[in-house]
This record gives sequence, C-alpha cells and structure tokens, in this order.
Amino acid sequence: MLTLKRDIARYLDELAEFIAIPSVSRDATADTMHAAAQWLAGQLKCVNGRVMETEGHPIVQGEWLGASDAPTILVYGHYDVQPAGDLTEWHMPPFELHVDGDIMLGRGVADDKGPIYITLKTTQHFMAQEGRLPLNVKFLFEGEEEIGSPHLARFLAAHSDELMADLVVSADGGMWREDSPSLALTCKGLVAMNIHVTGANSDLHSGRYGGTVANPIHALCQIVASFHDEDGRVVVNGFYDGVPELNAKRRREIASIDFDEEKYIRDLGLNEVFGEVGFTTLERLWERPTLDVNGINGGGNNTIIPHLAVGYLSCRLVAGQNPEKVIQAIAEHVSSLTMPGVHVSVHANEGGVPAYTISAGHPGIKAATAALQQVYPDKHVLFAGMASTIPAATIFERALGIKTLFFSFSTADDKPHAPNEFMRIKRLSEGMRSWEYLWRFLASGAYSLTAAKKDSRGLVT
Amino acid sequence: MLTLKRDIARYLDELAEFIAIPSVSRDATADTMHAAAQWLAGQLKCVNGRVMETEGHPIVQGEWLGASDAPTILVYGHYDVQPAGDLTEWHMPPFELHVDGDIMLGRGVADDKGPIYITLKTTQHFMAQEGRLPLNVKFLFEGEEEIGSPHLARFLAAHSDELMADLVVSADGGMWREDSPSLALTCKGLVAMNIHVTGANSDLHSGRYGGTVANPIHALCQIVASFHDEDGRVVVNGFYDGVPELNAKRRREIASIDFDEEKYIRDLGLNEVFGEVGFTTLERLWERPTLDVNGINGGGNNTIIPHLAVGYLSCRLVAGQNPEKVIQAIAEHVSSLTMPGVHVSVHANEGGVPAYTISAGHPGIKAATAALQQVYPDKHVLFAGMASTIPAATIFERALGIKTLFFSFSTADDKPHAPNEFMRIKRLSEGMRSWEYLWRFLASGAYSLTAAKKDSRGLVT
Repeated sequence: MLTLKRDIARYLDELAEFIAIPSVSRDATADTMHAAAQWLAGQLKCVNGRVMETEGHPIVQGEWLGASDAPTILVYGHYDVQPAGDLTEWHMPPFELHVDGDIMLGRGVADDKGPIYITLKTTQHFMAQEGRLPLNVKFLFEGEEEIGSPHLARFLAAHSDELMADLVVSADGGMWREDSPSLALTCKGLVAMNIHVTGANSDLHSGRYGGTVANPIHALCQIVASFHDEDGRVVVNGFYDGVPELNAKRRREIASIDFDEEKYIRDLGLNEVFGEVGFTTLERLWERPTLDVNGINGGGNNTIIPHLAVGYLSCRLVAGQNPEKVIQAIAEHVSSLTMPGVHVSVHANEGGVPAYTISAGHPGIKAATAALQQVYPDKHVLFAGMASTIPAATIFERALGIKTLFFSFSTADDKPHAPNEFMRIKRLSEGMRSWEYLWRFLASGAYSLTAAKKDSRGLVT
Repeated sequence: MLTLKRDIARYLDELAEFIAIPSVSRDATADTMHAAAQWLAGQLKCVNGRVMETEGHPIVQGEWLGASDAPTILVYGHYDVQPAGDLTEWHMPPFELHVDGDIMLGRGVADDKGPIYITLKTTQHFMAQEGRLPLNVKFLFEGEEEIGSPHLARFLAAHSDELMADLVVSADGGMWREDSPSLALTCKGLVAMNIHVTGANSDLHSGRYGGTVANPIHALCQIVASFHDEDGRVVVNGFYDGVPELNAKRRREIASIDFDEEKYIRDLGLNEVFGEVGFTTLERLWERPTLDVNGINGGGNNTIIPHLAVGYLSCRLVAGQNPEKVIQAIAEHVSSLTMPGVHVSVHANEGGVPAYTISAGHPGIKAATAALQQVYPDKHVLFAGMASTIPAATIFERALGIKTLFFSFSTADDKPHAPNEFMRIKRLSEGMRSWEYLWRFLASGAYSLTAAKKDSRGLVT
C-alpha cells in the first residue's frame, strides 16, 4: 500500500505551480501553453515525459512499458483550461490556488489539472516505491480539450502504433457527487455555433434612426425565442431525430438514485428547476439533449441601434443524434424565419462530437467498480450519465478502436467552467488510492481488456 | 460682416484640443471633465467665462449684458460626449480630431463640441471686431447631457434670476441634411431602463446543468421578442396612449419633402428600411414613438449557462406620451410574462424626458428662418422633426418658462453616438454666419421674444 496521505502540503504547492500557468487554450500565448506542457513533462520524467509539437498546442507524452504480460492502458487528460470569465465574480485571482477549509479553488483545479495531478502522483509513487508500474501505461495529455480537441485525431493517426493500447483511462470526466462514487456510461456530444445578425454598416443613434431600420438585437432575440416552446421542448424540426425513447427500466434506475432535488435547487440559489416537460431532472441531465444559448452580445448601455448582435449557441447531444444533422436542423430553422432588414448567418464551430457510450459490462467498468469499492467500501457505485462532453473518447475510438473509461475525481457540482471552480482536497488522496487499485486490478488478469478491445473495434468499423 | 472664412486651420487646431479631452460624462474622471470645462471657460474669457460646480460635472457660464434695450438669450450646449464604443470600428483614435477631405472626425465633433465651437467663435468675432454683442447673451454649457442632464434642473432653480432670458438658443440639436437647412419644431422624449434576468448564483457548466435549469438568456430573449409584433408595432399595452393621430396635412407636408429613401438605405448598407406598418420612413422618424433594445449582454462564447443576462432598453417618445406611464406600461408588460426559473427585474433610469415642441409661429423660429435664408439663399428652410432627445429644452421650459430654439449645424446623418462621428468642415463657417444673422435679427426688434415668452409661461403653468 502506497503512503498516499502524507505530503498534502507538497501536493498543494505543486498544484499551485500548475494552476499558476494560465493555460487557457482559447487565448493564451504559445509560450504559456508550452510552459504548462513543460511543467507536466517534468512531472513525468520517471516515465520518459516529453513535449510533442502539434499544429496547435503541444501534447505531453510519456510511457512505461516494462510489464510484458500485462495489458497496456493509455492515460488521457488535458492541461488546458477554460477562460477565467468575469474576474469580479471570483473570490480570489483565478490563477492562484486558494485553499478554503477542505476545498481548493482555482481555474482548472477540477477540470482537469487536479484530476491529472492524481495520475502524476500515482505514477511517481509506484516508480519510487516499487521501481515499476503494475501494467504498461502510456500517457497522453493534450492542450486543446476546451476548444474541442481539434488536432488530437491527426496526432493519433500519426502515432497510432506508438499509442495503441487496450483501454484509455481518462483523468477527465467527473463523478456525480462527492458522497456517491460513480462511473459514467454515457457522455454527451456537443455541437456549437454562432449566430450573427447584422444591420446597418455602423451603430446608429437610436433617435436619429429609431423606428426606421430593423434592430439586430430584436431579430436575434426573436430567433433565440423561437428555439423552445414554453414547456422547454426544443421545437427545431429534426432536433430530436434519432433520440431513443427513454425505457421504463432506465427510468426506474434513475428514479432510484438518491437525488435531493430541493438541495440541488437551493445550492444553485434558485426557486425551481426548469426543463423539458415530461422528464425528471436527472433524466433531463443524463438522457435528453439540450440547446442553450451560452452567450449573447450586442450594443451597450447607450442609445444606439447596434449594427451587430451575436449569439453563441451549443447543444449537448445524446446517443442517436448526428452532430452534422443537428447543426443543419438549427441552420434550417434559423433560415426559415423571416427577418426583414437584417442579415442572419449561422457559423458552426468545427469539431462537432457525437455522444459517447461504454457498456456496463465492459471489463474496464468492472475493474473501476471494484477499485472504487475498495476506497468507498460503504457506498454503492452508481452508473451515472455524464452530461458534459469529452471529445477525446470518440476520437480515441475512431483512431485506435479502443474504449475510454472515465476515471476523474472531480464532481459535477464543483463549478467547472465557472468562477470559483473548486475541488475537494480529500479527492486527491481518494483518487490516488483508486488509481492504484484500478491499475493493480487491470494488471491482475481478472478483467480481459483484450477481448473487450476486439468488441469495440468490431463496433466502430 | 465678420471675416468668418479665414483661419480654418486655427479652428481645426483649437477643435482638436477640445476633442482631445475625453469628456465622456458616463466614465471620465472629475479631472477630465474639469479640463474640458476649463478649456471652454478659457474660450469664453471675453464674456466672463467661468466654471461653476454642480453636484455632478461642472457647468460653464458666461455673459455679456451690455445691450440694454435688446432682448436676452441663453445659449445652451454641452461639452460632454458619448463613450467611444468599440475602438476597432473607428478608423482613427476617437479622441484625435482627424480631417478627411471636407469632413472632420472625432468623438463629440458633431455632438456637441463642433456646434458649440461655432458659438464661441461667433462671440469672439463680435467682441474683437465690434467690442460688443448685438444683444444680451448668457452662456450655459453643461457636462451631463449624454447622461440625461441630471443636475441641470437644480442648477437652474438655484440661479434662475441670473439665468433668466427671453429665449434659449441651443447649439445642440442637429439639422436634417447638409443640403437642406432645417429647424426642428419637435424633439422626441426619452425614457430608458435595464432589464435584468438572473438565474443561478453562478455561471453553470452547460453540460453538467444543461436542460435542468432555466437559461436567463432564453428568458430575456423571450421578453425582448414580446415587445413588437411582426409588423414593427409595439404591442406593450398602453405604450401608444396619448399619441395623436397623424393628420392628413402633416402627412402631406412630410410626403412633400425631397427624401431619397434609396440613398438612405444605401448609405446605411442595408437592403430595406423596417418599421411600424402604415407609416413612411420620415413619419416613423419624426412622428412615431419607438422602443429599442440598445444593448444586450450575457454569458459568452463558452459552454455555460450564464447566471445573468441584461438588456438595455430605451424609448423615444412623441408629444402626448407621459414618460412615467411609458415606463410603467413596459414594467407591467414584462411582469405579465411567465418566466419560470428566473428572476426578472426592470430598473428605470432617472430623468425620463417628455417630447418637446415649439410652434412654427414662434418669433425665435421666424428669426432663425430668416437667418438661414441669408446663408442658404437658394434653399427652402424645412420644418423637420428631431428624432433625438435634448432634455435641456424641457428643463428650461419648466425652470424658466422659456422656449428653446435648436440651432445646431451638425446633421442627422453624421454618426453621432457611433464610431467615426463626423462633421462637415464647411458647417463651421456656415454656422458662424448663421449665428451672426440670428443674433442681429433677434436684436433688431422685428421678432418680439417678450410676447412669445409670456405665451410660453402661460402654457407651462
């Protein structure tokens, strides 16, 4: 048994170094992204950690392949983070790790720097104490997850032999709740697009032109208001195509989960939940696709008619939905609306991702369940959905024909992507112990990854 | 006759100094606003120019009262300007006066620094060449017009004896078009408010919460989309209360104006005009009230459900509409909408202003018509509406019981409030000549301001 509980202070110091590098993949300089990659490669020195260039931000690789008769896993994670957003809403500078009681706060601490730190320490502990890992492990940490992993597929194609494995174990993911160890069998897909509504060639004085020209904000709001009916259903023709009926068995499973909806509402500072009529909150979260306008912007607090209004829209998809068809359905819906006096255009982001699934019977899921049972002996391991999106899982399946096990120790309520993102400090040691068990169990031969891999390859051809 | 055409280069140098002081009343420091006021007071040295403190930005006063048997006018203008807005849309730094052929560009050059500069030079020319002005002139330039003149009424109340006059002549206003000398008989009113839609206590990951909580952007867009019908009519109950029917005579007058709608559309880079069904473009502009959302903001280009979305709304009012009742009608409309899962609040800005009117028979209008006829002998002087709002006119009428003549030499198409605001250079000399004629005519005794003033006082009691 490794000594995982000591050195928490050192963990926090090291994590603080990592958080302090503002590796915002959308905005950061190449130097900043390289600094984060170098930091990571340094932590992986004992397993040949190195920085690999891509057409975008670098990828960090490493490997230890000395367990000749054991399976090989590919550990995945990402060192890039979301933009900090509105600084005034943070209780501290977002890139300074801040400890508050039993939690640590900072941009990226939950998504995904904290969870990948767990894998670094697990690796270092094994190498320091046993001089080896229990199984063959390849490491791949990318710097573009938050922008849709645009260069990962090409990198995998170029290094497919070198990266081939029996299973991907992802440090990115997220469990359902702190008090409920869980494994995600589904992961929602994602498509995103911008809607631009343009009017005149310049902002106009709202008096001197008021009433005579169309207002792009009004037009954009009509478009946004047209996406849902008052019962929260998406009324874009074709949006739900391919979405399976939610069967009675799954509804019962979900209904049996100990979910405190009143607490959920209270923790968010709300008075009520709201969503698609006919489904419970957890059904909406795990089983139903969504369409959200994430941002809207136009004009300002002065008396003008702006020349431009922009909406940023994204959809979380479930299994059965085709990303391209969803984009097309929305674009056709928008173009079917009559918008006199303005020009409307829809610009889909690249890298739409379908939903991802792994079966409850997959040996990776079984080994992970057993590992979690060791660390959380009094808890039932929940099979949850994951309402967020990890493009890499689909990319790995397409490129290498292997399944991904999500094994992150962040939780769904720790404010990823939002101000004051946090992670519970105890999750570091719980995570290290769980990764240790997972690796030992996968190495034990009790879970045949090779057979599962063949199944998976069959599915994706 | 004054020598007004010489010294254009010096005019541009001086105006450049004035434009260079970024006197944005909403944002600037007290020091910046004082610097602009001091610059102005320096220009008025020959008429006892001085800076007067208020509870907000200072007021610049001056006077020359040596024409014992002539009437007294109060010259009004404002040295504050709108925010520059999006700097990337300016072709030059907004606070550097830039000459491009026959126009000059810069924030405030048309609204209102250029037009008040005309009054400064007119005054200096008279004093230098004749040692006196033709009539008694009091000067009052404020620094808060662009934020609704919040402290002007109190200042007038405290200095009513000192500021009493027979007529206000406003350097703020704006003619219809460069090739059409015009006088405004109406000036639209203005009310403004913000609509806040709040959801959870933090931005939320659009996956991990998607579909389960109301999205404030969706709710705000539904509200904005509810204000107008598809024919451009405002469907807020009570909005049009008090708005008079547009009579056949006025419709004929407006229809007779040489208005090139195709050019209007082309100049704005549009394909068509858009507005309230049943009215022409000029009718919409001058005779009909409007409701515009000037700005909208929430979330951003990342996958979140924002906790807040804000809309900035304003209405231009016509004679007959009560500002308070319009605000109330909109607030009641918003609160009548069912918006589950979000909190909606409407915050009216202070300082709602009703529409302003002056009759075509007012001696100030007659004298101004005669003055313009001297400078533009081949043109018909048009009685236009002014679709923008100058709160001071109502404030002067209420505090001093006197009417305001708008006599600006900016034009409605010179991009006030927008990027690349400009003014035609020739308007400086045309303006100085026109102001000279106006003062001489008002001094001549041919236009009895005293009688008109009594009428006005009667009207407002």
